[in-house]
Amino acid sequence: MDSLELIKGISRPSPSKIVLVVIDGLGGLPSPETGQTELETAKTPNLDQLASQGICGLIDPVGPGITPGSAPGHLALFGYDPFKFDIGRGVLEAVGIDFDLNPGDIAARGNFCTIDEAGLVTDRRAGRISNEKCAELCQLLDGMVIDGVKLFVRPVREHRFVTVFRGKGLLSEVSDFDPQQTGAAPKVVSALKPQANTMAAIANKFLARAKIALAEHHPANMVLLRGFSQQPHLPTMAEVYKLKPAAIAVYPMYRGLAKLVGMEVLETGTTIAEELATLKQSYADYDFFFLHIKGTDSAGEDGDFEGKVRIIEEVDKALPNLTSLNPEVVVITGDHSTPALLKGHSWHPLPVIIYSQWCRPDRVNEFSEQACISGGLGRFAATQIMPLAMANALKLNKFGA
Amino acid sequence: MDSLELIKGISRPSPSKIVLVVIDGLGGLPSPETGQTELETAKTPNLDQLASQGICGLIDPVGPGITPGSAPGHLALFGYDPFKFDIGRGVLEAVGIDFDLNPGDIAARGNFCTIDEAGLVTDRRAGRISNEKCAELCQLLDGMVIDGVKLFVRPVREHRFVTVFRGKGLLSEVSDFDPQQTGAAPKVVSALKPQANTMAAIANKFLARAKIALAEHHPANMVLLRGFSQQPHLPTMAEVYKLKPAAIAVYPMYRGLAKLVGMEVLETGTTIAEELATLKQSYADYDFFFLHIKGTDSAGEDGDFEGKVRIIEEVDKALPNLTSLNPEVVVITGDHSTPALLKGHSWHPLPVIIYSQWCRPDRVNEFSEQACISGGLGRFAATQIMPLAMANALKLNKFGA
Repeated sequence: MDSLELIKGISRPSPSKIVLVVIDGLGGLPSPETGQTELETAKTPNLDQLASQGICGLIDPVGPGITPGSAPGHLALFGYDPFKFDIGRGVLEAVGIDFDLNPGDIAARGNFCTIDEAGLVTDRRAGRISNEKCAELCQLLDGMVIDGVKLFVRPVREHRFVTVFRGKGLLSEVSDFDPQQTGAAPKVVSALKPQANTMAAIANKFLARAKIALAEHHPANMVLLRGFSQQPHLPTMAEVYKLKPAAIAVYPMYRGLAKLVGMEVLETGTTIAEELATLKQSYADYDFFFLHIKGTDSAGEDGDFEGKVRIIEEVDKALPNLTSLNPEVVVITGDHSTPALLKGHSWHPLPVIIYSQWCRPDRVNEFSEQACISGGLGRFAATQIMPLAMANALKLNKFGA
Repeated sequence: MDSLELIKGISRPSPSKIVLVVIDGLGGLPSPETGQTELETAKTPNLDQLASQGICGLIDPVGPGITPGSAPGHLALFGYDPFKFDIGRGVLEAVGIDFDLNPGDIAARGNFCTIDEAGLVTDRRAGRISNEKCAELCQLLDGMVIDGVKLFVRPVREHRFVTVFRGKGLLSEVSDFDPQQTGAAPKVVSALKPQANTMAAIANKFLARAKIALAEHHPANMVLLRGFSQQPHLPTMAEVYKLKPAAIAVYPMYRGLAKLVGMEVLETGTTIAEELATLKQSYADYDFFFLHIKGTDSAGEDGDFEGKVRIIEEVDKALPNLTSLNPEVVVITGDHSTPALLKGHSWHPLPVIIYSQWCRPDRVNEFSEQACISGGLGRFAATQIMPLAMANALKLNKFGA
């Protein structure tokens, strides 16, 4: 049986509250000098205390050895099988700029690029034009209506933008327009199944118009599109868990992912302290909070070991503002590892604490990769976090007689 | 590949013997005073010795966070996926009173209830009539034959009874007759698919006759039926494991569950000592024994921490009567946790010992939730117990060349 179906069948509403703190890219690798990871290096008395009162373990966001992107990493934490619910690249890009997708919208990732007189791509990134230039060029292309389909063209960063096609009966099963190499001509977008002919035709008409509109804007004199995709149908957290969930996140992509599973996105500031202030203000109005901390991942991506340590310490200092609200269940973990040594996401499992009155604490009294190996939760799939949190909140009925 | 299919393909008969001891509701939660669970509080020198000679771990009966009922908890221990083999409520109730179901029988849970002159239900439990009254009223209804289908009506407890419909070609896909609320009229039983029309018609005729038969028996002047179900087809343990299995259990539900997977149910007494005497007497005749201890679960359900501790100690004292038989494999575990603090089943994983000459012992030398966290078996699904027991009994061939 599908796990979401199972949980949907046994979940029940109750006043108890769950707070899920996702410290993005939390897991690390030991510094060659000290033999300690970022988390092990950080001074974290509050996290350590929570670890000693809670039950700990290690999670695999997608599977052993698999390095997750942000979307599968978060879907798994929300209890959704990341293999079953695949968020297309286009959709994720749209979500990442806070674009409000409607059901049925088709989103594609776009690049401004340079083509030569023969129409061959000479620079797939148009010399990485500035954010300002990107925004200006997007305005040229935004708002077209082609055969009754409305187009949105919105800047992302540098040469990157998003195109959203809004109309009736559009299917995303079309090929990319992006040749993925220089010296080649952009491909014609073609339908991968007959019902997607309309979408392919509209994409090709858009590309023809874009070519004309951009002709004088060298180096950004053409666009490439790829990753046409449609918002997957995700059952909401209200449907599955009977929760009233809210998201507190500084970065748009995480707000977007939260929206995809039906969370309400709360207005917040840009610091960890402001995020926790938002939690406190809204605490009475929801029974589930997803609180996202971005800085750890950014520092990891930058290879900034010390920076990541500092942000973990900042989270630790802020923790009493969370625990003083006395949520019935607190979960602290990450969506994937981002070791500063690798300067990117990695496959390493993540430490997790689940704290509740009913958690049956283990003997782990320190929040670290090493200590969590011997935690009472063992090593398990991130998709199991939500069933465990729900159980600890006494929000699940018995399965079977 | 389905696990049962896999095991069926590689299992082989041999003289070695497996004893599976299920201490019902074994897992617990720590007492706030001592920080120790029921099992950790109990003095268990014999279990501790077995733990040090065996290999230990923690099992999830159904899945992390899922609180299992007795049926899925036991099916998992017998190696059957509890999601795939769903035991219907009616069947479980029949099994729970030792009613001998035939293949094709349809069982439904029944309540005596009170209806008013308009036919509306005023008390779904008929004021919880006595066991004696229930038995007396069941006799009034028992033994009818309707359109060639024989009916059995047997008392369970207070207002509860079981109805079994025995005939050819009956299907259980019919709606409940129970409105599940007072002030409403019982529903007409209707077929949920066309082939179930016969079953629905017979159920409605039974209900009409019951109304007449009970008219003068206020407050128990009507019946409600729900949970129509049919014994699922379970491959027997003889088919899957090539075992000759026997069950020793005091309570009828566990004998019934054992029968569903083809175990022979042995006559026994009501105490742990008597159960072990039965094991000894029958030891030569079978190669697999399921020995069920009920008292731990009952004490847990009652919130009786000390009572549960005492029963665990009683099991420990009796253990030498088992180990002195020198079974090749001994498995000690439970079907789910029943912490006295929660007064009910819970989701917490269960400690397990697998002892055999070939088990490759770990360093656990104490049978407890805490100690088993670091056991060599790790944390795993209860359905894997049987493959492990079979392997340790050297009853499985190599998989693949």
